[in-house]
Amino acid sequence: MTRSEIDVDVVDFQPGRWGNPAEPMHLSESVLGALTMLGISESAPAAVEPVLPATRIDDDTVAALTATGAVVATDDADRRARLRGFSTPDLLKFREGDGSDAPDAVVAPTTADQVTAVLAVCADRGLTLNPFAGGTSVTGGMAPGRGKPVISLDLRELTGLLDFDGVSQIATFAAGTRLPDAERLVGERGFEIGHFPQSYEGATVGGCAVTRSAGQSSIGYGRFDEMVVGLTVATPIGTAEIGTAPKSAAGPDLRQLFLGSEGALGVVTAVRVRVHPVPAVRRFYGWHFPDFAAGAAAMRAIAQGNVRPTVLRLSDEAETGLNLANPSGAGSASSSGPVGGCLMVVGFEGDEADVDCRDTYVSARIADLGGTALGTEPGEHWRLGRFRGPYLRDPLLDAGALVETLETVTFWSNIDRLKADVTASITETLGAAGTPAVVMCHISHVYPTGASLYFTVIAKALEDPLAQWGAAKRAANAAIRAAGASITHHHAIGTDHRETYLQEIGEVQVAALRAVKNAIDPDGLLSPGILLP
Amino acid sequence: MTRSEIDVDVVDFQPGRWGNPAEPMHLSESVLGALTMLGISESAPAAVEPVLPATRIDDDTVAALTATGAVVATDDADRRARLRGFSTPDLLKFREGDGSDAPDAVVAPTTADQVTAVLAVCADRGLTLNPFAGGTSVTGGMAPGRGKPVISLDLRELTGLLDFDGVSQIATFAAGTRLPDAERLVGERGFEIGHFPQSYEGATVGGCAVTRSAGQSSIGYGRFDEMVVGLTVATPIGTAEIGTAPKSAAGPDLRQLFLGSEGALGVVTAVRVRVHPVPAVRRFYGWHFPDFAAGAAAMRAIAQGNVRPTVLRLSDEAETGLNLANPSGAGSASSSGPVGGCLMVVGFEGDEADVDCRDTYVSARIADLGGTALGTEPGEHWRLGRFRGPYLRDPLLDAGALVETLETVTFWSNIDRLKADVTASITETLGAAGTPAVVMCHISHVYPTGASLYFTVIAKALEDPLAQWGAAKRAANAAIRAAGASITHHHAIGTDHRETYLQEIGEVQVAALRAVKNAIDPDGLLSPGILLP
Repeated sequence: MTRSEIDVDVVDFQPGRWGNPAEPMHLSESVLGALTMLGISESAPAAVEPVLPATRIDDDTVAALTATGAVVATDDADRRARLRGFSTPDLLKFREGDGSDAPDAVVAPTTADQVTAVLAVCADRGLTLNPFAGGTSVTGGMAPGRGKPVISLDLRELTGLLDFDGVSQIATFAAGTRLPDAERLVGERGFEIGHFPQSYEGATVGGCAVTRSAGQSSIGYGRFDEMVVGLTVATPIGTAEIGTAPKSAAGPDLRQLFLGSEGALGVVTAVRVRVHPVPAVRRFYGWHFPDFAAGAAAMRAIAQGNVRPTVLRLSDEAETGLNLANPSGAGSASSSGPVGGCLMVVGFEGDEADVDCRDTYVSARIADLGGTALGTEPGEHWRLGRFRGPYLRDPLLDAGALVETLETVTFWSNIDRLKADVTASITETLGAAGTPAVVMCHISHVYPTGASLYFTVIAKALEDPLAQWGAAKRAANAAIRAAGASITHHHAIGTDHRETYLQEIGEVQVAALRAVKNAIDPDGLLSPGILLP
Repeated sequence: MTRSEIDVDVVDFQPGRWGNPAEPMHLSESVLGALTMLGISESAPAAVEPVLPATRIDDDTVAALTATGAVVATDDADRRARLRGFSTPDLLKFREGDGSDAPDAVVAPTTADQVTAVLAVCADRGLTLNPFAGGTSVTGGMAPGRGKPVISLDLRELTGLLDFDGVSQIATFAAGTRLPDAERLVGERGFEIGHFPQSYEGATVGGCAVTRSAGQSSIGYGRFDEMVVGLTVATPIGTAEIGTAPKSAAGPDLRQLFLGSEGALGVVTAVRVRVHPVPAVRRFYGWHFPDFAAGAAAMRAIAQGNVRPTVLRLSDEAETGLNLANPSGAGSASSSGPVGGCLMVVGFEGDEADVDCRDTYVSARIADLGGTALGTEPGEHWRLGRFRGPYLRDPLLDAGALVETLETVTFWSNIDRLKADVTASITETLGAAGTPAVVMCHISHVYPTGASLYFTVIAKALEDPLAQWGAAKRAANAAIRAAGASITHHHAIGTDHRETYLQEIGEVQVAALRAVKNAIDPDGLLSPGILLP
């Protein structure tokens, strides 16, 4: 297999709708049948065009921003295109015509110097700003506080491969480079990043850095925060070049302070990221396990071993039953393998000898641990449809369903409790509202000490679906907190997770974070309300 | 091979002298011959017992400290045992009778609550404190500023396995637990930490966390900062429980702010660390390369691959020639293999199938890359003597040599330049003083994007060896900084590297670190002068 076989293009998602407008998804008959079983019979109300508040930025300020060299827009169309992200609440608000979170202006710098100049204008004129790149946030990261006029700092023109070091296997990208473009740029040199979050088609290198994104090959190539070797960050007190070595004992690792900072500590303008040669071989398999417990035990054994695959994921019985791993056939029975139980996908990428070595060892272990080999077809199905799962959400919302995902992460000894408690919190809350829910789960990121849990929830939408989901999400957050798990594995904090996050880290860490924020951003220009209140 | 074969006991180093007093090292005839070639003929002056300044802590304050439940000592013997660490300058000052850096008191809490109580007494009475555990610092970390009276907070009584989670493979230790004791405690449960720095016999779990220690199996089990999943930190503003999950997207990774904080941001009282089953198989090999460039290229290829050994190190021609990898035979020709060139040590640990898999792949690659197999004997020699290299330093100092080590880390494309520049800076500085130097180097920690360089320097000691080494060290620091590398890979900052460190991270990061310090330690109780001035 060659690079091009997994290559997909950048997709410009439409405001308020995830996915590729050129490839609208339709729900299969079997999905529509499943919806009927959940009592879903009426389509959602027709969407209303969001009405925006008037911009609070006057012509003089527009002129000052324009003088930086950045492109400035205050018209409704541009502001609407930067209105929130892609959580289900974001989509629901959009459908309801709620434009209240729109930025006052969209400012698109084309150089890092222009970013610095825009920061200075914001400081001078009492503006705030929130970086926007892929715009694929699902945690309210695109809806900063609006106490002062707020600029959506559009980094999509800050693109390109700035430096390439093939010996050290490091590529430096301008922060606004989209992931498919970044892969193309290093692919031309025979290298690959290998970061494939489900938002791959829209997300940017900088966005993945500031949100600690995790891609589907995390067991093989690491999370994005593990791939980043350096950052250039424009802040109100100066530009920081962060990261002088692969690893160092030179004090705290301050890369890790800016990774995950979601714009609140500065605007990342460039990212130095580890790459690897384009794999000569890609092999993806499906395995069947009789139940989630057996599959999870196998995931743990592989994660705790010294020889690991490139991709490893396990769908629970509910997700396997709905066959979400294969969006084009979602809702229909899997095209191969036994009915029931759990599907595991195991992928290997590398040179032939390396893949042979790891495949032989890992496949033998999985078989020992109770897996039944299903061959390459289910693995290839998953691989080819890997970014398409979320495309189903808007058609499901159209059909009158409430559908959303959430995720968390904990240590292995806590996985069973966490899965049970989160599932119960959601099903009980939605059930009490008269809307029984299907809650599906998968593990798609594993570590020696633990794993993520990713939940997908479907129920009938009530008249106020925002309030309906809000109650379920609060219950899930409380269950996560009570179990001692982290509020997010890879969706980040934004505004939606902020309250639970601050409880999770506790007073001393909040004081540390607040102190850094005040030192770097004394006037509070940066992403107000993101991470910290 | 079983666990016990690599097990070594805790060693209580004597003040001013590295190593096990029960096993004094003697220099071989060939080493003595080599010293003669460097012009070394006269032994060092006899050591003088350090004279300590009077303690500045009065009886009333001693009573307040004692009331916390901690054991308090202000006598000279106890204070002298906490006088600095084990850099060559530390040893030279000790030999010269310089006791000026002695703490005013030694306070040994036995519980984390007592640590908190001691912090409160320090705040009340205008004292400062510096945590002491293994005491193996080689960067001035045991010599804090003495503006106010300073306590050596001895954590050696804060020991033990506090919690063990075999499913998640996580052990929680009290911070003062020595590494050999920690290995014994988890070894009884069939597990191993696998962190083997050269200071293994003396170092503690907490010390390794706050200095970002890297052990000899770093390519297999990771650096210590990668093994740590959580920390309990006592600070003047409260106790922080840090780390809720293996990895998370919940904001900045604040574990990484406290890892490497060297006591300046709080006193680590407990560390949660990843463990793995005791390997059933340990296989260590020697490989020969014609020169350093060929060996380093092979190191890079292995580090950038998907299948890796547990241990990987490469001595340059000079180090291979002196056979420092085998301290008991140092200075004599290697007992096997060709003369000249470079020695690589490659180790594998795990279960039999895993080791077979990795050994087959990696050994074939090393052979492809120009290595000549030397069999297991050189690998076993290295393994069994792995902690003994530094034992030679005191006998060398006794014999009239100046001997010291320093280390750095950079990206692969910069390795050749960095090695050449650091070597030149040292040889030119010492040569200009009339003392030609031997500068040896090894790579013992590799990453996909780069590697560490570890230098050992031997020259004739002049009348003022402190000034003589000081000039060489400043030149090396300048060369490291000019090359854009990090001032330290695993020796940490302490006071010795502080100035270069602050240049390395730059103003924005210094402002961030300073802000965290001020927020957590508003009265400046913690490790004054360590990390920050």
